[in-house]
Amino acid sequence: MLGIGDDAAIIAPPPGSHLLVTTDLLVEDMDFRRAYFDPRDIGHKAVAASLSDIAAMGGRPRWVLLSIGVPQKDWEQPGFVSCLYSGAEQLARQHGATVIGGDVSRTPKQIVVDSIVIGEAAPGRAVVRSGARPGDQIFVTGSLGGAAAGLRVFEHAATLPGEAAHAFPQRFLQLRARQRTPTPRVECGALLGERGLATAMIDTSDGLSSDLAHLCRESGVGALVNAASVPVNPHVRRVPAARGTFSLALKADALQLALHGGEDYELLFTVAPSNIPRLPKKLNGVPLTRIGEIRELGRGVKLLREGCEEDLTPSGFEHFRRAD
Amino acid sequence: MLGIGDDAAIIAPPPGSHLLVTTDLLVEDMDFRRAYFDPRDIGHKAVAASLSDIAAMGGRPRWVLLSIGVPQKDWEQPGFVSCLYSGAEQLARQHGATVIGGDVSRTPKQIVVDSIVIGEAAPGRAVVRSGARPGDQIFVTGSLGGAAAGLRVFEHAATLPGEAAHAFPQRFLQLRARQRTPTPRVECGALLGERGLATAMIDTSDGLSSDLAHLCRESGVGALVNAASVPVNPHVRRVPAARGTFSLALKADALQLALHGGEDYELLFTVAPSNIPRLPKKLNGVPLTRIGEIRELGRGVKLLREGCEEDLTPSGFEHFRRAD
Repeated sequence: MLGIGDDAAIIAPPPGSHLLVTTDLLVEDMDFRRAYFDPRDIGHKAVAASLSDIAAMGGRPRWVLLSIGVPQKDWEQPGFVSCLYSGAEQLARQHGATVIGGDVSRTPKQIVVDSIVIGEAAPGRAVVRSGARPGDQIFVTGSLGGAAAGLRVFEHAATLPGEAAHAFPQRFLQLRARQRTPTPRVECGALLGERGLATAMIDTSDGLSSDLAHLCRESGVGALVNAASVPVNPHVRRVPAARGTFSLALKADALQLALHGGEDYELLFTVAPSNIPRLPKKLNGVPLTRIGEIRELGRGVKLLREGCEEDLTPSGFEHFRRAD
Repeated sequence: MLGIGDDAAIIAPPPGSHLLVTTDLLVEDMDFRRAYFDPRDIGHKAVAASLSDIAAMGGRPRWVLLSIGVPQKDWEQPGFVSCLYSGAEQLARQHGATVIGGDVSRTPKQIVVDSIVIGEAAPGRAVVRSGARPGDQIFVTGSLGGAAAGLRVFEHAATLPGEAAHAFPQRFLQLRARQRTPTPRVECGALLGERGLATAMIDTSDGLSSDLAHLCRESGVGALVNAASVPVNPHVRRVPAARGTFSLALKADALQLALHGGEDYELLFTVAPSNIPRLPKKLNGVPLTRIGEIRELGRGVKLLREGCEEDLTPSGFEHFRRAD
């Protein structure tokens, strides 16, 4: 009703709805590097993280606020702040939300962006992390490992001369896009919530192993993930020998990237056995893949690989995102 | 309904209410210095700024989210993050609001805190900046200049040996408290909104001259402020000669501090002439002082001092808060 320019924004909540509120702080050199992200990407990524949180609650995002802190020199650069806002606004609009307010401050050195998204859900339809029960099947949207691989491509490119970096094969560019401008699964999350299909849900912002551990802890359950079922991003494979120069960027095992790499912003959710027949193969064009099963708490969180069960130790967040 | 620990918090908005949403980003070395603020103060001040925004809309704060970024060394210091949250929670609770969520990240160097407050107001009762009309009288709650003077006391004390700094007279301590742990005028703002008394309102976060300029610009009006009526904080006076050592801290003219010093978080509001009889002398124990009148746009924003009108140039924010 009233947006940017007053002390606060005014919203008229839809009668009978519950509201979902989430906030994500992005910090330069921790969550993104200026070398790989232009202002528009920073705005995009900040809002993507919060839209994804609303999706993971089974809600629909409606309103966005953005608190931006930038150093003086960026502040003075024409278009810097407006491009950052514009990247945020464009992604919000694509997913049915509007930027209604925020705050712009100066910082001594790093860019910081706090993205706040308010969404809505029908009462009783929001999907929390704590609803998984033994016997529920574990699903994930899309594919995993792409964003972490994209970060490696960026980091590797930084060590190459300019021209070589531009000669990247197409799939490397796609991996970079997964890292820089991720697509939150907003429509998938909303449909799963509205149709009452998910018993618990979380987004894979920290990485599958970490986020599954969060979900299991909140639900008081264990889980078994089948390694062979994990949908590894098709571009994340060992690079053929002919591409030896670039292969360093992806030297990690593809499965490791898919299990532990963060920032894919896919949805990880559980479905009661009785609801499996109602679950489509694709939702809004995005494949849904069954990767395992919820078990009793005492059986831990395990990975089935080549016939053996091993511990699936949460190691997403620290290892890949905050490696510096 | 669901607070910290999931992807988003869930709130059930009161039926028929409008919601007010505001966000304020506080950055170390820009908005506060670690030397003068302990973690609890930082949490307090961050939330105070946002509570004050809700008050300035004539609403009542209900829910608070806090995004905190701290360097690794603070993260590892026992109690640092919890004290910061606790300072925020305590102030929120005092004003009828609850901390329901947030985000904690690490930063390379500075502490950053983004405070998000959601409040409520009856439809049509929110007070915006744009409602002032020529002939409306201008009022301010409490007193002005205390927070800016408090900052000077801090900065001056940093140049004194420890023992001398501890010998500050009581009123210097009160000025420091105005700077460090300001009291947002939550109940005053809510009552002004609910009773329909204010035509426009803003809080004095940037300083009277700057915030009055914001209000006039949004309303498309001019204003005349009577210097003799401005309620200068009683502790902001030239220090007597006997206190010569400390007087440096307050060497600025008291009126200048009251006109341009920010961070007092008082409410600056306008009242239609017909409503003046309904306005009490004090609201929730806080004095309301008439300091001037709204005029036509073309007459500018003026200060009446010693019988002469001079321009009241906005010079709060840059001058005092961001002097470094």
